[in-house]
Amino acid sequence: MKALQYVTIGQPPEVREVPTPQPGPGAVRLRVTAAGACHSDSFVMGLSDQEYADFGYPLPMTLGHEAVGVVDALGEGALGVEIGDAVAVYGPQGCGRCHSCAQGAENYCSHAAALGIVPPGLGRDGAMAEYMIVPDPRLLLPLGGLDPSATVSLTDAGLTPYHAIKGSLELLVPGSVAVVIGVGGLGHVAVQLLRTLTSATVIALDISASKLDFAREVGAHHAFLSDDQAAARVAEAVGPGTVAAVFDFVTNEPVLQIVRSLSGPRTDLVLVGAGAVQTTVGLLGQPFGSRIRAPYWGSRPELMEVLELARTGQLAVEIERFTLDQAPEAYRKLHDGELRGRAVVVP
Amino acid sequence: MKALQYVTIGQPPEVREVPTPQPGPGAVRLRVTAAGACHSDSFVMGLSDQEYADFGYPLPMTLGHEAVGVVDALGEGALGVEIGDAVAVYGPQGCGRCHSCAQGAENYCSHAAALGIVPPGLGRDGAMAEYMIVPDPRLLLPLGGLDPSATVSLTDAGLTPYHAIKGSLELLVPGSVAVVIGVGGLGHVAVQLLRTLTSATVIALDISASKLDFAREVGAHHAFLSDDQAAARVAEAVGPGTVAAVFDFVTNEPVLQIVRSLSGPRTDLVLVGAGAVQTTVGLLGQPFGSRIRAPYWGSRPELMEVLELARTGQLAVEIERFTLDQAPEAYRKLHDGELRGRAVVVP
Amino acid sequence: MKALQYVTIGQPPEVREVPTPQPGPGAVRLRVTAAGACHSDSFVMGLSDQEYADFGYPLPMTLGHEAVGVVDALGEGALGVEIGDAVAVYGPQGCGRCHSCAQGAENYCSHAAALGIVPPGLGRDGAMAEYMIVPDPRLLLPLGGLDPSATVSLTDAGLTPYHAIKGSLELLVPGSVAVVIGVGGLGHVAVQLLRTLTSATVIALDISASKLDFAREVGAHHAFLSDDQAAARVAEAVGPGTVAAVFDFVTNEPVLQIVRSLSGPRTDLVLVGAGAVQTTVGLLGQPFGSRIRAPYWGSRPELMEVLELARTGQLAVEIERFTLDQAPEAYRKLHDGELRGRAVVVP
Amino acid sequence: MKALQYVTIGQPPEVREVPTPQPGPGAVRLRVTAAGACHSDSFVMGLSDQEYADFGYPLPMTLGHEAVGVVDALGEGALGVEIGDAVAVYGPQGCGRCHSCAQGAENYCSHAAALGIVPPGLGRDGAMAEYMIVPDPRLLLPLGGLDPSATVSLTDAGLTPYHAIKGSLELLVPGSVAVVIGVGGLGHVAVQLLRTLTSATVIALDISASKLDFAREVGAHHAFLSDDQAAARVAEAVGPGTVAAVFDFVTNEPVLQIVRSLSGPRTDLVLVGAGAVQTTVGLLGQPFGSRIRAPYWGSRPELMEVLELARTGQLAVEIERFTLDQAPEAYRKLHDGELRGRAVVVP
Repeated sequence: MKALQYVTIGQPPEVREVPTPQPGPGAVRLRVTAAGACHSDSFVMGLSDQEYADFGYPLPMTLGHEAVGVVDALGEGALGVEIGDAVAVYGPQGCGRCHSCAQGAENYCSHAAALGIVPPGLGRDGAMAEYMIVPDPRLLLPLGGLDPSATVSLTDAGLTPYHAIKGSLELLVPGSVAVVIGVGGLGHVAVQLLRTLTSATVIALDISASKLDFAREVGAHHAFLSDDQAAARVAEAVGPGTVAAVFDFVTNEPVLQIVRSLSGPRTDLVLVGAGAVQTTVGLLGQPFGSRIRAPYWGSRPELMEVLELARTGQLAVEIERFTLDQAPEAYRKLHDGELRGRAVVVP
Repeated sequence: MKALQYVTIGQPPEVREVPTPQPGPGAVRLRVTAAGACHSDSFVMGLSDQEYADFGYPLPMTLGHEAVGVVDALGEGALGVEIGDAVAVYGPQGCGRCHSCAQGAENYCSHAAALGIVPPGLGRDGAMAEYMIVPDPRLLLPLGGLDPSATVSLTDAGLTPYHAIKGSLELLVPGSVAVVIGVGGLGHVAVQLLRTLTSATVIALDISASKLDFAREVGAHHAFLSDDQAAARVAEAVGPGTVAAVFDFVTNEPVLQIVRSLSGPRTDLVLVGAGAVQTTVGLLGQPFGSRIRAPYWGSRPELMEVLELARTGQLAVEIERFTLDQAPEAYRKLHDGELRGRAVVVP
Repeated sequence: MKALQYVTIGQPPEVREVPTPQPGPGAVRLRVTAAGACHSDSFVMGLSDQEYADFGYPLPMTLGHEAVGVVDALGEGALGVEIGDAVAVYGPQGCGRCHSCAQGAENYCSHAAALGIVPPGLGRDGAMAEYMIVPDPRLLLPLGGLDPSATVSLTDAGLTPYHAIKGSLELLVPGSVAVVIGVGGLGHVAVQLLRTLTSATVIALDISASKLDFAREVGAHHAFLSDDQAAARVAEAVGPGTVAAVFDFVTNEPVLQIVRSLSGPRTDLVLVGAGAVQTTVGLLGQPFGSRIRAPYWGSRPELMEVLELARTGQLAVEIERFTLDQAPEAYRKLHDGELRGRAVVVP
Repeated sequence: MKALQYVTIGQPPEVREVPTPQPGPGAVRLRVTAAGACHSDSFVMGLSDQEYADFGYPLPMTLGHEAVGVVDALGEGALGVEIGDAVAVYGPQGCGRCHSCAQGAENYCSHAAALGIVPPGLGRDGAMAEYMIVPDPRLLLPLGGLDPSATVSLTDAGLTPYHAIKGSLELLVPGSVAVVIGVGGLGHVAVQLLRTLTSATVIALDISASKLDFAREVGAHHAFLSDDQAAARVAEAVGPGTVAAVFDFVTNEPVLQIVRSLSGPRTDLVLVGAGAVQTTVGLLGQPFGSRIRAPYWGSRPELMEVLELARTGQLAVEIERFTLDQAPEAYRKLHDGELRGRAVVVP
């Protein structure tokens, strides 16, 4: 079969012919109907030799951790799904049996690291291929009549902001203000989710004027440039008072300064971007009662909830479609910031 | 192998020789190291022919829905456990894939009824035998070094009150009062759990003076007869003010009257006993803000938490041990109210 | 000043000339800018002599527990508001100092009954007058630029469904279904609140076809007659699966039958109407994990949240305006079911 | 009357004769029966001239923000308390009317700073005097029969750790591990609270061996030196797996390193000490799903709960008593680390 693989560190990924995989006991083979490209793939392909080795990822590795497909073959004892079922893949799988996994929060599995369990495309072969292996039927969620390419991005670009926002829901009461920084693949979903799940006033910040238009299109009440005037513009738009939650999909030094300038007593500072930044913490170092959180991906029941939002027409991801042969170009556009929403590969 | 089976409606269960079962694909065979006897078994054996038929249970049926054992054989694709592992069985299994099951709340599975999924011993062969089949490894929780016969009752008599209490935890703040009615197999665990999990004042009610002593032994601050003076005695002991939660492990007409007499604004009336009672509801029919709940068994992560309480010495079930041959006698004593705690069968 | 008073049991209320009240120490006098008429006033005026005496209400009594006004005079030590402030009155006041009141849940005050503290218009003189007394500035919430007559109903017809729904929010996840029964003054607000606060599918039931149109206008996804086919129509509209919450604004025998027929595992049955009905409860008498709740009015912070929804344009009450002289006619129309939304009296 | 005042920046506080204050409208005068000394007083007295000016505190200023007393005089319109009532003072008062205050979370008042509202002893005259003024009766909680000097420290040294822990309660399930760093006035209460409110395993860390003994006396399961071996000792004591919450009552660079070394996925890092420290945050800069929180003092209903814990014998503060004349010596011992628990001044 054809697969998009990362072969050489520092080089673009390549479309290659590889053997079609067979499902082992308990596992399931999917015929992939759509796979999504993500900034974290770019992040991985930007690692140096040493960093890549530290992550312990194989080479070559088929990319893609956003996946939907059709059940194509079942290993022995793989129960609960049938050949032909249309399904979405829950990516951040865990051991399935620890306390976190028993609650569906496999994204916080206590044992995954020790057991070497990794998501597809992030340590083992992923979804950018004609076929892929999923280790357990519990990781497959019914897709129903949802369109594969319109839906696949929800498995990460939908689930990640959903999980981030769900952790702040109790703060987002009527009259509250939520700020989204970075209106890309995840951020434009975050704006929609905040509008659908809460009655908060939603403000989007980005460095690009066209992204601000995009934010307004998908429901932001206000959209401002994320420069050093951002906090002042927010205050002007919504009056004094505190921003209840800031969702930062960028997470670098200048953005964290904006996040900090927006925060007051009990603000939830939610850092979702793949970054690491120095800041001051403590009772005299951050606003009273504030929290700095770093949520990761989302839980299995949360992904079900995200799919329900799509099913009821309350959530739509802006996508651009590519064939498998065009997939390297998709990653180039992603890397160069030329995509408005999310790149989807249809094998 | 030997098994304790319910064979003839209206007759006591019998110890019989039956074929040792084989695990199918994805399933696990346990060598049972302990099985618990429960009032719900008695309830089932008290049904008439017609009622039993309505439940759709087979005959003969091996009893027992509280089980611990050692993994003895694995079906194809049964992954995640190893031969020799000591495990506890999560009884109220569901489909494993719906929204409730994905959160571990298989006790509230949306599909179990339609799919004919039932607990062991309550619709299919259960734990009162030398061996039993568990359909999926996810239902097996590590027992660690816990003693099988001291622990087995926690899978229902521990888990059920734990789940009931967990639903009221937010109300059981310091200064609050919790009442437990019925100090039997589940009730004496509820008293311990309330002492361990909350700082509430715990009051036990029972019709038997010896059960009141039992309640005090396991930690109740007060224990009173559950007669028509009960509410007055509670008020005398703790002063005016509201009882935050009443946990009723009996659930019949006279007890519900006591439950009602104890309740005020925002009281949680938690009905755990296998009963059905008429009462008045509505804004003018129940205290403002009160809730009448009927929780069922518990979730998979909750069972893990219960086992942790045993592991850390914060919970112990009073038990009486029986061999498989003595199991009919265990059920007789259970039925006749001659047990102080819980009957455990060690095959 | 003029006031609408209930003077003779069984007779319509009368517009009378009474002395303008003076605020005592700590109290505030408002010039009333709008007052709302409510079914609970009708309920009170429908009581027999004996029942009215049992409630302990005075005669004559100025009606009206929904109130907005302008601060007009301050008693000694009444701090925190200024003459001229436009305010809404929080009705279900409590002692202000017990554990419930300290959290703003004065509607569940532990001491109000014993201290004889009652809402305006329900045991002491209320809002249907040119002036009214509010005992403490904490009960006055800033109205800002909101229109008095468009807003006044939110203090009960907005707050009561808001509080009822807030207690079910954790259940109303994406993909869930919520049912509202009775699309009157409170019910049509409940439909709007469910649309604004949740992503649930919202279904309204009523006995009147015009009320079903009303429900659709304010946002219900579906609206059906509340007859014995209601449960079947709901199932047809949303598929199998469970209704997460039913909000019953009627609460009589036939409606409770519908409520019960809609409920399954973990359904929240929320009874908001001023009624008392017999039903079956307990593990074998209600769906597993279901709750029967009877919330009362709402808390002080919740009223602030309701006002914020109005301020941000997410909530609007359908009203019909009356002068104080027309107020008896407003109550007649309310009693006879001739109002579509809520009757508001502008003194 | 006599009062302990901070008079000269950089000098010890002095006992001085000052006029007995009169309660204005709405306010209450207490005869102080006990006042507590706190590290934050030391912190304030350690500020430079410039820093003190930046805080905007007056000079001289009577110290003391932990207070209990007896109602001695009432201003006009000060309702709800009676002369002679024994009360505890809720310190972190707010405006009383914003959304936070309406929920009793006056510690996070939105308007206090703008309105110049400050706690007693931290910006206005406090409790280290024969009499003190409390601006509103809502800030007075019934003391009942509790001993004043044994109880006064609960208003901060009890309330602050209680609020910090309450924010982590959902994580502190059976089987979880909680770590307390710094076993001083607040830390030794935190250990007790964790034992009373949770079933977690509680580990205390401190730099002093005698403090470790103190921690064990008040209920810590384990107590270790807080050096660079601390994380290893914790892991050895409780096995692998994650620490659910770390409560840091010190908050400086070396301690934060220990906090970080103890944290894993979803750990709550709760910084309670009056410090500000640089650290790394973000998805790649802190454990997945972890939170860095800085709670401040506590809410009014929480203080009620803390007093209930004392009333039911579940919480006791270790204290050393001083007269008002000895109060400067109390602060010296506090500053020099010579106190085991909390210093209490009995005027």
